[in-house]
Amino acid sequence: MRLATLTSGGDCPGLNAVIRSIVRTASAEYGSTVVGYQDGWVGLLEDRRLDLYDDEEIDRILLRGGTILGTGRLHPDKFRNGLDQIKANLEDAGIDALIPIGGEGTLKGAKWLSDNGIPVVGVPKTIDNDVNGTDYTFGFDTAVSVATDAIDRLHTTAESHDRVMIVEVMGRHVGWIALHAGMAGGAHYTVIPEVPFDIDEIVKAMQRRFQMGEKYGIIVVAEGATPKEGTIDYDEGEVDQYGHKTFVGMGQLIGDEIKRRVGQDVRTTVLGHIQRGGTPTAYDRVLATRYGANAARAVHEGKFGSCVALHGEEIELIDLANAVDELKTVPQHRYELAQWMFG
Amino acid sequence: MRLATLTSGGDCPGLNAVIRSIVRTASAEYGSTVVGYQDGWVGLLEDRRLDLYDDEEIDRILLRGGTILGTGRLHPDKFRNGLDQIKANLEDAGIDALIPIGGEGTLKGAKWLSDNGIPVVGVPKTIDNDVNGTDYTFGFDTAVSVATDAIDRLHTTAESHDRVMIVEVMGRHVGWIALHAGMAGGAHYTVIPEVPFDIDEIVKAMQRRFQMGEKYGIIVVAEGATPKEGTIDYDEGEVDQYGHKTFVGMGQLIGDEIKRRVGQDVRTTVLGHIQRGGTPTAYDRVLATRYGANAARAVHEGKFGSCVALHGEEIELIDLANAVDELKTVPQHRYELAQWMFG
Amino acid sequence: MRLATLTSGGDCPGLNAVIRSIVRTASAEYGSTVVGYQDGWVGLLEDRRLDLYDDEEIDRILLRGGTILGTGRLHPDKFRNGLDQIKANLEDAGIDALIPIGGEGTLKGAKWLSDNGIPVVGVPKTIDNDVNGTDYTFGFDTAVSVATDAIDRLHTTAESHDRVMIVEVMGRHVGWIALHAGMAGGAHYTVIPEVPFDIDEIVKAMQRRFQMGEKYGIIVVAEGATPKEGTIDYDEGEVDQYGHKTFVGMGQLIGDEIKRRVGQDVRTTVLGHIQRGGTPTAYDRVLATRYGANAARAVHEGKFGSCVALHGEEIELIDLANAVDELKTVPQHRYELAQWMFG
Amino acid sequence: MRLATLTSGGDCPGLNAVIRSIVRTASAEYGSTVVGYQDGWVGLLEDRRLDLYDDEEIDRILLRGGTILGTGRLHPDKFRNGLDQIKANLEDAGIDALIPIGGEGTLKGAKWLSDNGIPVVGVPKTIDNDVNGTDYTFGFDTAVSVATDAIDRLHTTAESHDRVMIVEVMGRHVGWIALHAGMAGGAHYTVIPEVPFDIDEIVKAMQRRFQMGEKYGIIVVAEGATPKEGTIDYDEGEVDQYGHKTFVGMGQLIGDEIKRRVGQDVRTTVLGHIQRGGTPTAYDRVLATRYGANAARAVHEGKFGSCVALHGEEIELIDLANAVDELKTVPQHRYELAQWMFG
Repeated sequence: MRLATLTSGGDCPGLNAVIRSIVRTASAEYGSTVVGYQDGWVGLLEDRRLDLYDDEEIDRILLRGGTILGTGRLHPDKFRNGLDQIKANLEDAGIDALIPIGGEGTLKGAKWLSDNGIPVVGVPKTIDNDVNGTDYTFGFDTAVSVATDAIDRLHTTAESHDRVMIVEVMGRHVGWIALHAGMAGGAHYTVIPEVPFDIDEIVKAMQRRFQMGEKYGIIVVAEGATPKEGTIDYDEGEVDQYGHKTFVGMGQLIGDEIKRRVGQDVRTTVLGHIQRGGTPTAYDRVLATRYGANAARAVHEGKFGSCVALHGEEIELIDLANAVDELKTVPQHRYELAQWMFG
Repeated sequence: MRLATLTSGGDCPGLNAVIRSIVRTASAEYGSTVVGYQDGWVGLLEDRRLDLYDDEEIDRILLRGGTILGTGRLHPDKFRNGLDQIKANLEDAGIDALIPIGGEGTLKGAKWLSDNGIPVVGVPKTIDNDVNGTDYTFGFDTAVSVATDAIDRLHTTAESHDRVMIVEVMGRHVGWIALHAGMAGGAHYTVIPEVPFDIDEIVKAMQRRFQMGEKYGIIVVAEGATPKEGTIDYDEGEVDQYGHKTFVGMGQLIGDEIKRRVGQDVRTTVLGHIQRGGTPTAYDRVLATRYGANAARAVHEGKFGSCVALHGEEIELIDLANAVDELKTVPQHRYELAQWMFG
Repeated sequence: MRLATLTSGGDCPGLNAVIRSIVRTASAEYGSTVVGYQDGWVGLLEDRRLDLYDDEEIDRILLRGGTILGTGRLHPDKFRNGLDQIKANLEDAGIDALIPIGGEGTLKGAKWLSDNGIPVVGVPKTIDNDVNGTDYTFGFDTAVSVATDAIDRLHTTAESHDRVMIVEVMGRHVGWIALHAGMAGGAHYTVIPEVPFDIDEIVKAMQRRFQMGEKYGIIVVAEGATPKEGTIDYDEGEVDQYGHKTFVGMGQLIGDEIKRRVGQDVRTTVLGHIQRGGTPTAYDRVLATRYGANAARAVHEGKFGSCVALHGEEIELIDLANAVDELKTVPQHRYELAQWMFG
Repeated sequence: MRLATLTSGGDCPGLNAVIRSIVRTASAEYGSTVVGYQDGWVGLLEDRRLDLYDDEEIDRILLRGGTILGTGRLHPDKFRNGLDQIKANLEDAGIDALIPIGGEGTLKGAKWLSDNGIPVVGVPKTIDNDVNGTDYTFGFDTAVSVATDAIDRLHTTAESHDRVMIVEVMGRHVGWIALHAGMAGGAHYTVIPEVPFDIDEIVKAMQRRFQMGEKYGIIVVAEGATPKEGTIDYDEGEVDQYGHKTFVGMGQLIGDEIKRRVGQDVRTTVLGHIQRGGTPTAYDRVLATRYGANAARAVHEGKFGSCVALHGEEIELIDLANAVDELKTVPQHRYELAQWMFG
């Protein structure tokens, strides 16, 4: 067979590990060849592609962050008029099946192509861990590790200066990174998009700490956190496709309120893009390698319209439709358990 | 309620995170108190214990490797005559329930105590990931990370010197660390206890690499690896409780054979105890925290004779009997998939 | 003898290693005792102090970021009226000599106390590496390491998305962190306070990269960077004690210009406080330990009015006056050499 | 001009950073070209070389351990008959000057070539930090960091199990790695080749710890440590070129004695090759980059027969003869100061 793969959407540690694993499995287990389309969906539309060989070069990318294929943010809706072009390109290049690697938007595009007769197996990718139907996605563990390292460092600075430190982490729609990094980093409060925050409660939690003789506090805030309606005034920004209000700088805003009401020195750190780049953790390399190998196998077994997923210890196939019907959010009981850990 | 906990068996990153989580959940959610017995089972027998308070001190241990309670290797069979003493000690100290944290041996002891009327909830602990009935145990991710970091470093040295590097990792009875670290580290061959190795095949794999122009090789060997019967002569050492032959230095032995037959420079590194100490990864801190909190909850809900376990995304309770009936080994299909990744 | 120490100014990895080393050297080599004043100079004025014992507790702080004594930002000028109080407090506590650990401001205070008859030996501390008369200060290597790790991660994200990434690092008056992290991280341009930047030149450097087929760029900007006069409009902010104009957000401003003129996607990351917290690097632990031990020795040898300093491989004593007469800036030839490394 | 470079001797983090810096400086500052001979001196003799271009490829190697040129251990004496061949090869390839990168042996070879009329500028390289005339060599900081990380991890395991842990680190002839890693890691005893050890004293130091209620001990042993004459029986192994007796396994031997005499559980970890591979620390990347750039400059300024060296904050040129006349050993006062830090 001749397979094609592409990476679409935001950067994510482990993308190269998936590509390597697809190439190696296809080559070593099935004697198949693989091409990679460049810069996401746009490379498929414009027929820009690279041959990927099972050689020393591909071996080396296991540790490398980013994606050797480049990525793009072309929305799947945008290529709806391009179906004939895509089919023609795939046929001309002799491609038997396509393995797109991407988040919720990418997998929607994959489903649409599958519904239109193109043999597709998807690989879910998101540092946010918000793809439905899979326990975890690669990149998430790396993002949590980077955020946790940062929180570890901020503890001692906060403590030496009797400060409240706000750490804003990624997570526009879901709070998985905040939940895990907050728990791993021993945060004294964690705010996630799924549970609108009560600024009074956060202020009280900090006041309680200082009254008990503690000298500092660490608060982890997901970038998509929103206050309970009516409790705090701010520019709401745009409403996005999921109906969420996005707002740049919620960490800063919470920090300003605490400073004003607790009277303690407060600093805000926005971790930003360091959460999504660089060498993947061992966990993410293993997960990405297993995803790639299983996607290559699924293609050779003709199981199209599917998506690889982690269920417990096993990689299984789910229907692409299940992966895209909704975002996977933090369940209430996970957040409640975390709250007992708040200092 | 008044709970007691203890840590038993080998050191494991995350033990302190479990202890902290038990104390905090018991205190904050239920208003209960916690004592810790020192040095494992022997501390319970000799009534050596510490009061554990939900304070800044306990907060700090989240990041600390080892166990603030100390650990011991007293075999559960050894305290079979001590049941009356244990019961008396628990009663005198006003302990309502016991949460032992340990591996397969410790959980067997926990089950025996439970069978003898003591209210027990177990927490599985092993860097080897060999406890049955749970997807993963804390400490495993840290061990894999440390081993993977080491393998990453050895790649470039091996390559610069045209060498075969053998990395012996922990895993006397099961190959989970070798499997994951080998996959994450891009090893060119991985040997696990579950699959007796064929030295001819390893030699051929290395020869094939060098014939194809590659300049080096990395082989990951679990310490408990054993050769196919009759294929290689060595001192077998003792047979342990699980019927496995243990042998110190299998990495060295494989290295010697490769050196002799491939004629390439070969070096062996035994990673040893650095795999089981130090600050836990973010993954292990989250898992350990969840285990501790759920064990404390189970105690307060009267669900004795059980053991916390990770199933997919959720922490659930299993019967202690299920945790100890056999070791969890690497399934055949996991090892086969890994083999396609061998360089 | 009975010594006192205190830590003043911003948090810096290695402070605890200095404290431990003073205590241990004083105790083991001279049989002396040590007390620590809390929260910097204010603790000395208010006589808030802790006895520091050469025990397991002090041993453990070697790895800990922050300072167990707390720190404060009381300016030395502020206690000029407090000289009698300070003298009385030191006498009442039976203190024979004082070892203040701090940056340029702290050492000025130390000199003033020394000039007024108090036996003082200073220890220079600054993550910025701007103390005169010493090759390096502890904390600097840790800050550079944290910044370099971040830059390493941003490379792959920038590359995957064809972006220019701006990384703003610490350094309000001097560019040492930017210079070293930029060189270690392979930045394609680095901007330091010592050399006013020409926005046209930065824009051209990026254009040149893209014209040559490169897909991305990394620019490291010290927070205190300033443009050549008249080349760019911005709110100048306040003028500080050194006559520098400070401006929060120079990285963002440079990024905006590049976006406008190069037409490439640009993102800015402000690393912030993670550069000054957490476990020190091995380099900083060794330097801090040597500083502390040599300061304790200098006190016992009666060499007051001095400050420890690194010269090549040796720790030597310099006159406190030399440490505070001016900030140590990046010399022209160091920046020029770095420029040849710009991609 | 047309320059050549080569890397010889053991692997060392930062070699690629030097190569990159030579290529970039030669190209960007002088418009010169660079070739690299493969596998050390043997590549020069056999005229195996690669053109090195100032492109994205060379940029990427900054972070990579090992050496893209390969290395070899051909002793300089071995090519004494090859002088004519070397001269012919250099002439045929149009090489104007040679920059060999290596340790004491390599620099001796460089000096011999220089004495025989070949324009040479050397770059010192050794993880052991034993090259004379320079404060530090790149690779040393990385080796110390790796060893310190390992010691950090061993502390908690040792403590949890009431053990003495022996950590054998690199350093056959000098104890720099042991001295720095022991100090950074808070070791309770450190043994270096420069000071023959007294096993009675080590045993007593451990006994003292346990008598004072401490529960564990960490001892760092340089691989080249030797006992005081007559104090301990062991197979002495071979005497090497420097007159030192080498012995594989001194850590184990010390451990056995402690176990026998202190009656405590003892474990030995031999860190081995992970100390010399992998991504260099930020410190080593900066030092290597400066070495490479200054070597390229020295060549263009005609300063042959020299070697780059770090003196304080500056890179200077020393005579090659000074770099090779003896090994740089740990001075007595450095070891004495470290002893006060022993726990």
